[in-house]
Amino acid sequence: MSKLRQDNRQNHEFRQVKITRNCNIWAEGSVLIEFGRTKVFCTASVSDKVPSFIKEQKLEQGWVTAEYSMLPRATATRNSRDGRKCSISGRTMEIQRLIGRALRNAVDLSKMPNLAINIDCDVIQADGGTRTTSINGACIALYDACQYLVEKGLVAENPFKEFIAAISIGIDDNELLCDLDYAEDSNIGADCNVVMTESQQIIEFQLSGEKQSFGKQALDGVYDLGVQATQQIIALQKESVGLK
Amino acid sequence: MSKLRQDNRQNHEFRQVKITRNCNIWAEGSVLIEFGRTKVFCTASVSDKVPSFIKEQKLEQGWVTAEYSMLPRATATRNSRDGRKCSISGRTMEIQRLIGRALRNAVDLSKMPNLAINIDCDVIQADGGTRTTSINGACIALYDACQYLVEKGLVAENPFKEFIAAISIGIDDNELLCDLDYAEDSNIGADCNVVMTESQQIIEFQLSGEKQSFGKQALDGVYDLGVQATQQIIALQKESVGLK
Amino acid sequence: MSKLRQDNRQNHEFRQVKITRNCNIWAEGSVLIEFGRTKVFCTASVSDKVPSFIKEQKLEQGWVTAEYSMLPRATATRNSRDGRKCSISGRTMEIQRLIGRALRNAVDLSKMPNLAINIDCDVIQADGGTRTTSINGACIALYDACQYLVEKGLVAENPFKEFIAAISIGIDDNELLCDLDYAEDSNIGADCNVVMTESQQIIEFQLSGEKQSFGKQALDGVYDLGVQATQQIIALQKESVGLK
Amino acid sequence: MSKLRQDNRQNHEFRQVKITRNCNIWAEGSVLIEFGRTKVFCTASVSDKVPSFIKEQKLEQGWVTAEYSMLPRATATRNSRDGRKCSISGRTMEIQRLIGRALRNAVDLSKMPNLAINIDCDVIQADGGTRTTSINGACIALYDACQYLVEKGLVAENPFKEFIAAISIGIDDNELLCDLDYAEDSNIGADCNVVMTESQQIIEFQLSGEKQSFGKQALDGVYDLGVQATQQIIALQKESVGLK
Amino acid sequence: MSKLRQDNRQNHEFRQVKITRNCNIWAEGSVLIEFGRTKVFCTASVSDKVPSFIKEQKLEQGWVTAEYSMLPRATATRNSRDGRKCSISGRTMEIQRLIGRALRNAVDLSKMPNLAINIDCDVIQADGGTRTTSINGACIALYDACQYLVEKGLVAENPFKEFIAAISIGIDDNELLCDLDYAEDSNIGADCNVVMTESQQIIEFQLSGEKQSFGKQALDGVYDLGVQATQQIIALQKESVGLK
Amino acid sequence: MSKLRQDNRQNHEFRQVKITRNCNIWAEGSVLIEFGRTKVFCTASVSDKVPSFIKEQKLEQGWVTAEYSMLPRATATRNSRDGRKCSISGRTMEIQRLIGRALRNAVDLSKMPNLAINIDCDVIQADGGTRTTSINGACIALYDACQYLVEKGLVAENPFKEFIAAISIGIDDNELLCDLDYAEDSNIGADCNVVMTESQQIIEFQLSGEKQSFGKQALDGVYDLGVQATQQIIALQKESVGLK
Repeated sequence: MSKLRQDNRQNHEFRQVKITRNCNIWAEGSVLIEFGRTKVFCTASVSDKVPSFIKEQKLEQGWVTAEYSMLPRATATRNSRDGRKCSISGRTMEIQRLIGRALRNAVDLSKMPNLAINIDCDVIQADGGTRTTSINGACIALYDACQYLVEKGLVAENPFKEFIAAISIGIDDNELLCDLDYAEDSNIGADCNVVMTESQQIIEFQLSGEKQSFGKQALDGVYDLGVQATQQIIALQKESVGLK
Repeated sequence: MSKLRQDNRQNHEFRQVKITRNCNIWAEGSVLIEFGRTKVFCTASVSDKVPSFIKEQKLEQGWVTAEYSMLPRATATRNSRDGRKCSISGRTMEIQRLIGRALRNAVDLSKMPNLAINIDCDVIQADGGTRTTSINGACIALYDACQYLVEKGLVAENPFKEFIAAISIGIDDNELLCDLDYAEDSNIGADCNVVMTESQQIIEFQLSGEKQSFGKQALDGVYDLGVQATQQIIALQKESVGLK
Repeated sequence: MSKLRQDNRQNHEFRQVKITRNCNIWAEGSVLIEFGRTKVFCTASVSDKVPSFIKEQKLEQGWVTAEYSMLPRATATRNSRDGRKCSISGRTMEIQRLIGRALRNAVDLSKMPNLAINIDCDVIQADGGTRTTSINGACIALYDACQYLVEKGLVAENPFKEFIAAISIGIDDNELLCDLDYAEDSNIGADCNVVMTESQQIIEFQLSGEKQSFGKQALDGVYDLGVQATQQIIALQKESVGLK
Repeated sequence: MSKLRQDNRQNHEFRQVKITRNCNIWAEGSVLIEFGRTKVFCTASVSDKVPSFIKEQKLEQGWVTAEYSMLPRATATRNSRDGRKCSISGRTMEIQRLIGRALRNAVDLSKMPNLAINIDCDVIQADGGTRTTSINGACIALYDACQYLVEKGLVAENPFKEFIAAISIGIDDNELLCDLDYAEDSNIGADCNVVMTESQQIIEFQLSGEKQSFGKQALDGVYDLGVQATQQIIALQKESVGLK
Repeated sequence: MSKLRQDNRQNHEFRQVKITRNCNIWAEGSVLIEFGRTKVFCTASVSDKVPSFIKEQKLEQGWVTAEYSMLPRATATRNSRDGRKCSISGRTMEIQRLIGRALRNAVDLSKMPNLAINIDCDVIQADGGTRTTSINGACIALYDACQYLVEKGLVAENPFKEFIAAISIGIDDNELLCDLDYAEDSNIGADCNVVMTESQQIIEFQLSGEKQSFGKQALDGVYDLGVQATQQIIALQKESVGLK
Repeated sequence: MSKLRQDNRQNHEFRQVKITRNCNIWAEGSVLIEFGRTKVFCTASVSDKVPSFIKEQKLEQGWVTAEYSMLPRATATRNSRDGRKCSISGRTMEIQRLIGRALRNAVDLSKMPNLAINIDCDVIQADGGTRTTSINGACIALYDACQYLVEKGLVAENPFKEFIAAISIGIDDNELLCDLDYAEDSNIGADCNVVMTESQQIIEFQLSGEKQSFGKQALDGVYDLGVQATQQIIALQKESVGLK
């Protein structure tokens, strides 16, 4: 076990997961998801406000997009409220683009023409892995919103294709650590985020070594651990919605 | 009972209150407060970042300030994320100024020199009364942050003076309705917000009749109902922190 | 007489009022109003630019809205120009929302369908009471703009209902001071703003005790003084437009 | 007389000028200036807030800068309030840079080390020529602010060098029109602004032909008319402050 | 020769000019223009996005507009990237308005109804005279874009009227210096920019004396030198496009 | 060869590369780099403006950061100028963060204490691969800026560690395409960007499948092709600076 890991988890284990569906009375899909002490409040909102490029090009499709934000005191020291100073941080931008891109793989956009689903991921409490936790929770909210579309007769066929899940993996010298918490993340050499489908296909595979570069062996290890963790998370997602 | 009231509450009753302290592991004070279906997440963050006027004028005092925000899907239809478009709405401004002003009455600022307490009120779910619910929850978080100041030896004496509570009251023709929910608020003629201390002193008394003006009798009624409701809420606040 | 009052006014007296109508050649209504040394330039501009919610909901009504601003050197020391730095101050927001809300009580919006009246209150010189002075002047400009609507045949019936007036009242221990100037306002414990109709109905009643809380007796006193002052001001407003 | 000129003025005449000094109780210099129906409220505010380049380069000098703005209803149709939408218009920028540059020629900046004079020109009512009217009024406010510096002992020597004046001149085919009003300006081929000193030196000479280009003869004519008009205006400026 | 001139040029000479057409594969017109070490990349982009006033007033015309920007390291020390901080500098505003205004004189807007040409002038390297160099290069790009309109049959007749050229001229005591480089510009008393047509008509004539005022003789000298330089530059422009 | 590839390149080949050093007279390092028709202008600017976290934490290190921008007409249709509307696009944010992160791997920040190098990558013409081309050019400019630090005696030891290079790789069904141009990129299923060091270590490895997910085989293929291409590019970088 890595010397960085303080909580008795094996290197390949992710933290305790807790999923609470329907945590919001208004949204068409809503989930409070927890990975250890990281808590993210995810809502999926259905509307007919598709982006202008869909209207202009008269595309027969819908859209899924995401916004991500942290409450000011989600972190150990208070951050100034994102967006209050006339700009969103680059980090926030990057994360919400990743979430949106990943979730668009979970649905068949052509089956929800002229419908938009807005995903909001608000981090209530942060302890590492907020972007992957967001994706994992948001996918369930998206599933529920798609059910809503079916129930309300807004679509001919359910646009939801399959569950997707995300996991962060750290590379510390030769060890791989699954689902980094904040203390681990601060001390790790390289940080990876993997998003995969239920059918074990890769959607996003991002490895970034700011303090430490790495070789092919690490790449292979991240893949293997990514497959294993995302499949387990997808099982939890499906269980939470009563599948299988 | 007013025809506007749909939930079997008497006109003078406020909704079921639920207070969950320490809902955040990082903040010096934190409370999840619920008035019926309205849920606000309140944190109090201690720092030494006092406003510049205190430094410039070399005042021997601290400061308490507040920020208020609603999650995009806190409401029945999704709102665009506050602050993302380079400006905060006037409503948000107005509310967070009220919260800060009210809470500064709960402490003796001269007993916390060069210390700032930032209150964040994030509305997780809105069903009317978010500003009064925010004040009621934030006051408890502030109490806990003041305890923290004492425990850490950052102050010579506890700056917390007394609890304060807020209530919204609607005027519908000749009836007064305590603690409006969203459906009531949308149909009411005039809307009032009262903030009072444990010693029954008024801190804020705001009556605003956009659809209906009102006379002295209504003013007196709002005062009486305000006293009664705020004293009951203060009892709940004190109970939540183990006082009395 | 309060020790705070330096200008030989009795506590219940407001300052000398001067009203100059038609101070602008372009606006449909315009008034330069002075309460002592406080001078506000008010214009009412008629247009067909009603807010989008009126169009979207196809409401058969018009709208009245207000903007408030201070010239940079309206005050003893120069302020940076409001709005030049990408945001309006919370104080400005709060005031212009109050002005707009108050003035909408002076008209019957259903009698001016698809018409908007924009009120601009620009403080040329500030010496306390700028928001109440703004309301008092703007109401006359609004009256004139409504006359214009009638004369031009843009409305079937005059939408102006009745005059409204506003007054600020300070609470200094047990004394109530009417129409605070800047020096008084800076030293007062609690600050109130009352807006009433000609028929003595309350439209806005805002009491705020940042330095000092207060009891029912003060509330009653503010009401009584508010009635008396607003009725006198309404008499001056009517006189200025040649009524009675 | 040009067919564009509707008010019986000769082509070389400027409009009736009215100068009201000390129109503001707070500012170190203040002037309400009127050229016909164009009215500009000018204040000069003394402070020690010199720009950072003066401090960084440790220059032994002061600074004069200007801001220009129009009230929303200064014009025939209401404009949206400048600066409220996160940017100042290019026109406003251009004008306030011109005013500041021109006025810095009226003083010896080295005689007011570490002192700043902020000029604010707020157009109360616009009927053409607001930038030249602003310069003409602001120069008097600047004169008064320099007197203030001397009286308060803030400078060893009066930094005011000489009066400067500005005039707009239109070119309509072969005719030159002095001091265009709005109706003339809208129909003119080319528009010029000239700023000159009491000693007949040119400070700014801006000719711009958007609809019509012009030759050397027009250039000479503008110069001659510019000299004549600015000398007359300077006489009025000096008279207003009791010189000569 | 002026003591300010370090590069063996006579006072009336402009720097070596280099014009590279079609420097961009996408734009309808593109020119890299160099005046000595000043390099500006100019593109002309054709679209149907005419300004709203043309649509609203149903004018039978097109529009030409310009944007100007400097790369951060175009200058000796790096500037922060224009526009990244929520506002464009006044200098940038002023320059791009000048460029647009000047270029609209080169075309007959009525011959390009509902067509817009956007000029972009990006300063790759700055060594004085960036605004005049921009105009000189942009006019060629505009010529090429007009050719494109003809070739594509988007216009009935070529809207290009005649070439225009710009030159900066400095006034140093009694000497006039043509086409200032950065070192000269920093030490000059007064700075002029002249824009003229092929037919020797003046379009813009801007003289500005921040450090030094000037008399009629200088005005005449600037005119003469302006005529001479712009005619020579126009010859180079025409040569570059194969005319004459 | 893939049906997407139109220019006779083999799937594993990158486009013709052209490197022009010292393309700017002011910057401490500057490179114009071309990959086919994609042209990026890169400058490296040395200053002592390190980020505040370095000063606050008194770290003995320097910093390298990057900004990325596209000229408005770098693309087939004109884009609005980035940053002019009060915000930078998410795409721009993401790219400039990647460039900065990658380049910090090329230097030893502890060897350049209190020194900052600002990299500016301005895309003059875009035809796919602008982010990878930017990294490849910027690394050479960074090398030159480090040489400058040594020559000027600003560092004790050269902070440059080793060259890094970036390549984009597309996944089209079972084929991998190296260095996508714009036409290819628009039609590809999944898009990857790989950044590697001269010692064949991975710095960034980003695979993103918006239209198509992919398996382990593709991952391995991207790695192999990434190694091959980056090593060849590094050879070109070194050649350009006269190494080997």
